[in-house]
Amino acid sequence: MANFEMHQFLIERRSIRRFEHRPIPSDKLHRIVETALYAPSAGNTQPWYIIVVQDTGSCRLIYENTLWLAGKPPYNEAPSAYLLVLWEKARCPDWPGIASCAALCTYILLAAHAESLGAVWIGSITNKDLLIHHFGIPKELDLFSIIALGYPNESPKPVPAGEDYHPYRRDGQLFVPKYSVTDKVKFDRWQ
Amino acid sequence: MANFEMHQFLIERRSIRRFEHRPIPSDKLHRIVETALYAPSAGNTQPWYIIVVQDTGSCRLIYENTLWLAGKPPYNEAPSAYLLVLWEKARCPDWPGIASCAALCTYILLAAHAESLGAVWIGSITNKDLLIHHFGIPKELDLFSIIALGYPNESPKPVPAGEDYHPYRRDGQLFVPKYSVTDKVKFDRWQ
Repeated sequence: MANFEMHQFLIERRSIRRFEHRPIPSDKLHRIVETALYAPSAGNTQPWYIIVVQDTGSCRLIYENTLWLAGKPPYNEAPSAYLLVLWEKARCPDWPGIASCAALCTYILLAAHAESLGAVWIGSITNKDLLIHHFGIPKELDLFSIIALGYPNESPKPVPAGEDYHPYRRDGQLFVPKYSVTDKVKFDRWQ
Repeated sequence: MANFEMHQFLIERRSIRRFEHRPIPSDKLHRIVETALYAPSAGNTQPWYIIVVQDTGSCRLIYENTLWLAGKPPYNEAPSAYLLVLWEKARCPDWPGIASCAALCTYILLAAHAESLGAVWIGSITNKDLLIHHFGIPKELDLFSIIALGYPNESPKPVPAGEDYHPYRRDGQLFVPKYSVTDKVKFDRWQ
């Protein structure tokens, strides 16, 4: 049996970059990380740790040291919390480790969506050493990515992608070009 | 509002490696790829293609040229279909490209779960060149991973992880050790 609600759940998750200015209850954050730890990983190594960040000073520091696709939000629409995803390289090196941490990030985005929260995956960290020092991250762990979290204050809309696939804003609305099955899927073999 | 059904959906997905010997209807495969294309990607680049493989000869070739964690299934419990995930490196190189393709793989696993199908992510391909040639994959694309699909013929059970995290079989049942929030999550900073 197909579960169309679950398909909708996956399809309707969007990256959110504008948030309401209010804190996230701790039980929501707790459920997000609890679910996310069921993400698949190469050889079941689970080569990751998560730091949950909520205090205003630390959130401000992350806000100031990250790059955002399609523009950083104004500070009054900044995220209310961040999850730092750390990669234990020695446990699962090279691309399988990257792929595993990416699966964890994907699970975090979806678990946030299950909490009706908005989230975006941030890979561009402008001053990694500063954050590593501030959060006391041990040297055997790599700061892989950061997931920003908050109550969504925008509703990005998927549109068909053509030559250009860059998200764009028009009258305050964010549009996100997405390729279709016709564009991206082959059957039996490449032809 | 938290949606506990969606949390359960994410938590209950398991990697499946034993399948019933029957074909998957095309509409199921179509819905899986359609949903999966909504996976997030670095800079929205969507640096991927998918080849859907169902014919017996091609499935056999993939079966023979892949390595499986915790043992390859006997041939009468082999997958009924495979999705080849191809990475367009030039469009999104290095780790953001790997992370994007991994997000697509994670979405495929979850979309398969929404179809009550079992799936497992295979990264170990023993003869990549043979498969690239057989499926006519253009040289500018990398065969990133393969997702095996079928009707599940096992129900792996998550158990708490300790020193050893390797999945193991006992009396035909597969057990999968998983770390908990206490093991893997820190609050505010590493301490």
